[in-house]
Parts: sequence; C-alpha cells; structure tokens
Amino acid sequence: MRNWRLVNHKMANITILHHKRRTCVTYAEGRCSQIHINHAKCFRALTQFAIKNILQQTKRILLEEITKLYKKKTLKSAKLFDKSKKFHVNGVSHNIRFFEPYPFVTKSARGNFLEDVDSNKYVDYWMGHWSLILGHSPKQVKKPVQKQLSLGWMHGTVNKMTIELSEIIQKAVPVCEKIRYVTSGTEATMYAVRLARTVTGKKTIAKIVGGWHGYTSDLLKTVNWPFDVSESSGLVDEKHVVSLPLNDLEKSLEILKSVKDDLAGTIIEPILGGGGCIPADEDYLKGIQEFVRKNNSLFMLDEIVTGFRFRFGCLYSTINLDPDIVTLGKIVGGGFPIGVICGKNEIMDYANTSKKARTDRAYIGGGTFSANPTTMVAGHKTLSILKKNSVYSKINNLGNKAKKQLNKVFDGKVIVTGKGSLFMTHFVKNGISEIRNSSDAAKCDSKLLHKYHFEMIAKDGIFFLPGKLGAISNAHSDSDIKKMIEVSDRFSANL
Amino acid sequence: MRNWRLVNHKMANITILHHKRRTCVTYAEGRCSQIHINHAKCFRALTQFAIKNILQQTKRILLEEITKLYKKKTLKSAKLFDKSKKFHVNGVSHNIRFFEPYPFVTKSARGNFLEDVDSNKYVDYWMGHWSLILGHSPKQVKKPVQKQLSLGWMHGTVNKMTIELSEIIQKAVPVCEKIRYVTSGTEATMYAVRLARTVTGKKTIAKIVGGWHGYTSDLLKTVNWPFDVSESSGLVDEKHVVSLPLNDLEKSLEILKSVKDDLAGTIIEPILGGGGCIPADEDYLKGIQEFVRKNNSLFMLDEIVTGFRFRFGCLYSTINLDPDIVTLGKIVGGGFPIGVICGKNEIMDYANTSKKARTDRAYIGGGTFSANPTTMVAGHKTLSILKKNSVYSKINNLGNKAKKQLNKVFDGKVIVTGKGSLFMTHFVKNGISEIRNSSDAAKCDSKLLHKYHFEMIAKDGIFFLPGKLGAISNAHSDSDIKKMIEVSDRFSANL
Repeated sequence: MRNWRLVNHKMANITILHHKRRTCVTYAEGRCSQIHINHAKCFRALTQFAIKNILQQTKRILLEEITKLYKKKTLKSAKLFDKSKKFHVNGVSHNIRFFEPYPFVTKSARGNFLEDVDSNKYVDYWMGHWSLILGHSPKQVKKPVQKQLSLGWMHGTVNKMTIELSEIIQKAVPVCEKIRYVTSGTEATMYAVRLARTVTGKKTIAKIVGGWHGYTSDLLKTVNWPFDVSESSGLVDEKHVVSLPLNDLEKSLEILKSVKDDLAGTIIEPILGGGGCIPADEDYLKGIQEFVRKNNSLFMLDEIVTGFRFRFGCLYSTINLDPDIVTLGKIVGGGFPIGVICGKNEIMDYANTSKKARTDRAYIGGGTFSANPTTMVAGHKTLSILKKNSVYSKINNLGNKAKKQLNKVFDGKVIVTGKGSLFMTHFVKNGISEIRNSSDAAKCDSKLLHKYHFEMIAKDGIFFLPGKLGAISNAHSDSDIKKMIEVSDRFSANL
Repeated sequence: MRNWRLVNHKMANITILHHKRRTCVTYAEGRCSQIHINHAKCFRALTQFAIKNILQQTKRILLEEITKLYKKKTLKSAKLFDKSKKFHVNGVSHNIRFFEPYPFVTKSARGNFLEDVDSNKYVDYWMGHWSLILGHSPKQVKKPVQKQLSLGWMHGTVNKMTIELSEIIQKAVPVCEKIRYVTSGTEATMYAVRLARTVTGKKTIAKIVGGWHGYTSDLLKTVNWPFDVSESSGLVDEKHVVSLPLNDLEKSLEILKSVKDDLAGTIIEPILGGGGCIPADEDYLKGIQEFVRKNNSLFMLDEIVTGFRFRFGCLYSTINLDPDIVTLGKIVGGGFPIGVICGKNEIMDYANTSKKARTDRAYIGGGTFSANPTTMVAGHKTLSILKKNSVYSKINNLGNKAKKQLNKVFDGKVIVTGKGSLFMTHFVKNGISEIRNSSDAAKCDSKLLHKYHFEMIAKDGIFFLPGKLGAISNAHSDSDIKKMIEVSDRFSANL
C-alpha cells in the first residue's frame, strides 16, 4: 500500500487515487471507473507536481468520458453524420456547424429546444445563428406562414407582403428611407460596399478587426485570429480593405487618416457578433462617424445581428448615431432567408435605375428569392409580435441575469461579454483582464470554451454552438437560465 | 370631305381616318374612338408616307389604349405601388421586376397563375424567376413544407433533410461528389470562382459575353448590352474577368490563350439564361473544356437555370461534358432560397477545413440560412416528384409546341430561342437572321418584345416578365399554350 494517496477532488465528485506513474480514477457515485482501488490501500502524500499531473490526466479522462457519453447518446447521429460526410464538405453545410467528435443531427426544433435523431433534447442558445428571437417555430408566426404557402411562396413579382414589412421597418428604423431586400446578409453587405464606392467614387473600405460581414469577397479580411493572415485563398482584392482595432479610437483614426483620400466608407457592427460579442463604445462609434462624415465617406452600420435584438428598432438610435447605410437580416426575416440594405434617400438613389445611368449607378439587383412572400410574412409577423409584446424586457432581463450569474459562478475565471439577450463567456488566459476587441477575445482560452459548451451538450442537454455566443429567445425561461448556471457552476468548480 | 381617306386595317379591327395632319382612329366595334368621323366623309388615297405616319401614330395610340386598359384594371396595384415607391428603390425588390407604367402587385399565386390585388389573374410564364417547375404552390410540396414548419424552419445545425436532398442530387448529378448548400445563386457562383482561384493559384476567370451568374462582385461584367461598358459603378476588380463570345470557338480560344498563364477557370451556362435563352453548341462547350483541361484550369458550369429543367439531372451529362464544378439553384430548392456549389472530391477538398490550412483553403462558409430545413424539404419533395412523374416529357413537349407555333404565327418576324420548356421570342431587327450569342439577341427589337409582353399582361391575362424568357411548368396545360399562341397571332397580324 505504499506510494498511494487518496485525493478527494471537487471535480465532478471524483476520487483520485495515485500510485507512482499510474493514475486511477473513480466517480464517487461509483458509476464509472478506470481502475478502482480500495481507499484503505492509499497512504502517501502527493507532491504538487504529482497533483498537477493527476489533474491533467483526469481532465483528459473526463473529456474522454464526456465524449463517450455523447457518442453513446447520439448513435443515430453518428451514422447519419458518416453519411453526411459522403455528400458534404466536412459533413456540414456551414463550416462552423461542425464540432468534435461529430455534430448531432437535428430532427426537429420547437420553442426553446432542438431535438436530434436519437430523440435527445437540447435547450438551444444558438437559435438559428441568433435569428430566432421568438424561439423555434412559434405558433403565431407558423400559422400565417403556413397559410401563405397556399397563396404562393415565390411570386417573383412585386407583392403586398413586402410593402407591409417595409412599412413596419421604416417606422422603427428612421435611416431606412429606402429599402432593398436581398437573400442573405452576405449579399446585403456586398451591396453596401458597392454603394459606398459608387456614391463616393473611392475604393477603400474600413472594417473592424474581427468584424464579420458574411462571406462576400469584398469584406473577407481580418475576421479570424491571426488577423494578419489572409482569411482564404482565392481572394484577389484584399488591398482595398483596411481594418481598425475596435474601441481604440486614436489608432483607428490614425489608420483612417492614412487612407482618407480613397476612403469610401466604414462598416461596423455596433456589437461585434462573431468576433466575440463585444459592444463598441459610444464614443468610439461617434468618433469614427465624425471622421467619416468630415471626410465625405459613408458611415455604415451592420445591424444584421443587433437590429431588433435589444429593442424594437436598431441599436444605433439609442446611441444617437446617424448612419448613411444600415444592413439588416436574421430577426427581420423571422428566421427565413433575408438580407436588407437600407439607407437614406440620397444614398439609395445611387441604385435607382430611373435616376442614374448605368455607369453612375450601383448595380443592386435583389436576387431570385428577394422579398419572397414566405420571408416577408414571417418577418412581418415577427416584428408585429415584437412591437406589441414585452419580449425585449423579458429576454434582456434573462440575459442580464445570465451574465451576472455566470460571472458569479465562474468567480474571475471568465469575462462575460455581450448586451441584453446576447452573451459570450470568455475563459481568461494570457493575463487578459478585459475584452475590448477581438484580439483580446482571441487571447482567451477558446479550447476551454469549446469544452464547456461540449460538456453541456453531452451531459446536460444544453446547446451553445461550441465556441460561439449565446442568444436568449422569448421561448427561454427563468428555469432554463437557472439550469445553465447550475451546470456552469459545476464546470467552474472543476476547473 | 376632300383630303380624307378610309383605311381598313387589320390591326385590331381598326378603321383609320386620315385628314391632312390629323389622324382619327375608331375601333370597328365602336367601343372607343379618338375622333369619329362618318365613313362617307372620306375619299382620298393616302400616300405610303401617310400610311407610315398613321401606323406609327396608331401604334402609339394603341399602346396608350393598352396602358389605359391596364391602368383601369389595376387600380389597387397603382395605389399600392405608389406606396411601395416610398419604401423601395424603384418601388421594387429586384430591378427587373419593374415594368412601365408600374408592375401589378401580386396577392397570391397558385398552379399556373398569379393573382393581383385587383383580382386579375395572369397565366404565369415567369414562374418565380423560372424556379417553379411544378407551378405555384403545388400541393405535394406545400403539405410537407407546412408540416416541416411545425418541426422548425431554421435549425442552424446539421439536419436530416439536408442529407436526404443531397442523396437525390448526387445520384442524378455525378459531378456532385461533394456538395455545399448556400442561400442564393449569387453566393454559389462567388464560391465557385473563389474555389477555382484557390485550386489553381491563378486569378483570371473567363465567362461568356451576356452570361449571368448573379450579382457577385467577382463576375459582374459583360452581362448587359452594351457589353463593353461596366455593369455598375463601385466595382474594383474587373480586370480579373475576361469574356468570351458564345458559340465562337475560334475567337474564344484566342482570348483564352491570351490569358492562359493566369487562367483559373471558365464559368458557362450551357444555355444562356438572362442573356437570351441561347443554347451553347456542344462543340463549343467541348472545345472550351478541352482547352481548359489542357491548361490546368477549372471547367465550371453554371446550371442554376438548366439543372433539373430538361431532365432529371443536369444538362451537361447529355452532351458528355466533364465539369469540375457545377452550380445549382432555383428548381433544386423547390422555389425556396437556395444556391448549391458541387464538384469533384479533389476540387471540393480545397474547402475542407480538416484537410487544408487556412491560407491554402477556399473560405466557403454557407451562411446563416444554408441548408435550412424548409428549403431542404421543398427541394427534396420537388425532386422526388420530378423523378417519379412524366413532368419532363409534358413540359418539354409543351415548350416545343410553343416554339413551333410562335415561329408559325410570327412568320419570320421573330426568332424563338430556347430548349424544352424554356423559350424566348426575339423580334428580328438590324438584319439579324440567327441568334448565336447575346450580341445577336441584343440587336433584336427589345422594345417590341416589351410591348408584346405588356399587351398580353394588359389584355389577355398572360404574364411574361416583360423582355424575359418564358418557362413552362407542370401546372401549364395545352390550352394555356393555345391561348398564348392565339394572342401572339393577333399581335403578329398587327405588326
């Protein structure tokens, strides 16, 4: 019995036994063990070094256990995903939808949950890339869309539903003096850039380091860490984009000044979405706007994520900004495909075929599916519900509560960023003490974040797309948040 | 009574009276008149010059009459379109959806017709930008989509329906060894270009003069006549695209040779869609493919319009082509938003995040709405119907009949291009005797085509988007074609 010691560790109620180079782990509940050795056999103290070793190994074993658990409960998903890999690049239809060992395959979604093909349910904080503010398949939207299907889902002509949706958007978002619907956010930002270049006759677009505006070739730069490496092969025109560090006005203005003669415009998410759920400071946005305005360039805001997310309208009006162009998407289509480019009359006129000649005009088409009646009806109904009900106070409160509680249970180990119903948990690493931009976020422990999210998927039926921010919908409840906090507390305790 | 002559003219049963510089027109039925002067008052012969004058004026008056008729029956549309202009650039969500004096506003669509807000019905040959091969809102597709809405319309995760759709596509289109769904055709061709540049490490893309691949900045060149003028302001990177004259292999190869060292690939619609519904010759396509292959560039086919349009699969296999990449859209989404990029494994692997490092990889995401279950279910159901039923023999026959009859009634005044269920009527002008490419098509009388289409809208309840090609769906019948031919005969008689 020499050389053994018992360590009772909080981590998932584990009893750890160590003997020389062998590590033996058993769950206190006796549910699972690697090697079980009687308590009485242990007697020597472990050195600090040994403890560290044990913890590392235990973590690996735990992850293996969690992966085993996930695999056990997702047998049908595993088979189907194998099949999916035969058809699809990486097995998925969107790079970020893959996670290790394989993503579960969804069968259905309703309210606050996704259900996979093995009938596991997951409380969903991904919510269709954050587009489903009312949750999955809300009855009040579903019914009118089902009805619309009998009246045609693809008119390909001017339809009444479009006018109705635009009326409600225009009232809520003053800058939308003119609106053009397109099919995706990627298309909307592509057109915004084209329009800015047309209006100004200049070429350079400034975006934010870590800013995400979809896949358009015109803006695919400095999206992911390391930011100084090209995002993709096959891009030919990266030199016309410059990138600004979020919330560092001095440096940003310096960069803008260096390109001011060719600056067509800036495009900024008021809260970085994919880049880490990081709000831009009011002063920062105002400072950029001021420069851009004086320089006769366009100030563009990408509110595809933030539009109608925190209030009935855009975020920009709460901070007294005056953008020339705003892009919308996600929520305004009620979860159906949409992108919107909106702007002031004098700007949008540069796309008007009756006012401008071809070479003076920005070619903004629309696309086969633009303003299709299904999307228009879903968007209109969603916004009508948001206008009348107290959705925002509910989800903003839940979000604030989630952030507060996460900060509490993780007790300094994380920084929770976000606003209202959007939040993201960053595990502190590399001495990061605040997250002001995507570089700060990139320095945090993304592996640990993936592990945290994956453990919730595998053990607790809670779904965050691993590594991404969470969105609370009207279908979520106080008890959902409570559960999420409880499991976060458990995770924290074992760190 | 001197200086007057009666001309009984076939054109719409009109009696034309002419007196010096005054032209007086009355319909024989007496329904409408500009100035009615008793038959007996007329006696002098008109000169050829006068007849020409009369005809011109009569045409104008007739167009005014038709416009009046249209305005009279579309009063609610007029009001709503006025409102639409307040919200939307040009009043529309897609430039081409506007026509003079204003487009009617659609209320609903079912089977073979659109219904406007004034309850006028139009037999629809536009068919949702040619995406609705089964007609509007077919019950067999509508029901499963309605059901799907209860199971969620936006999972944002890997779903079962995607695998089912891909299985059916892959079996029918051998080149689809790997598939990536995106949200629109514009996105699909953007990714195709990015992939070609990634695989080859070269930059130049060759397209066809008049070729239409959506609005992506990467391919927005030589789309509309005059082809040597930029399509849009605000484009920064046009130099990497060269354009080939369709069906002129010698000249095309000459151009390809001039850029061969930097040629990443060619992208071609096997039948020019927006460019005039003009099939590419088999030898032309094979000649291009041969050159591209020898040059280690990619041969890409854009089958967004032609895929599953003429047969259960793509057009390329009927002419023994071997593309590296094919783009799909429209029909494969059953009328719901979709774009698809497919290709051989070794090509699509350049988008695989697990096989290639970031800088060697084409960043092909997908987009928020990619592979959403609504589109997947609609696409799968549509393809299942197309596979089992005799839709193709029916619609190809109707199309062939339409083309034959149009050629007959227009008796040399038109050239009808197209294939199977797609057809386009070009009014001969400028000595054009055949249409082999978009330049030939652009020389035809597009004003007359607009007039022809508009007259059918206003008088006959038949809808072609003015100036565009027509698509026959499974919801069309022999009697629809018969009616369309009858009114074309009347129009021809009055030319």
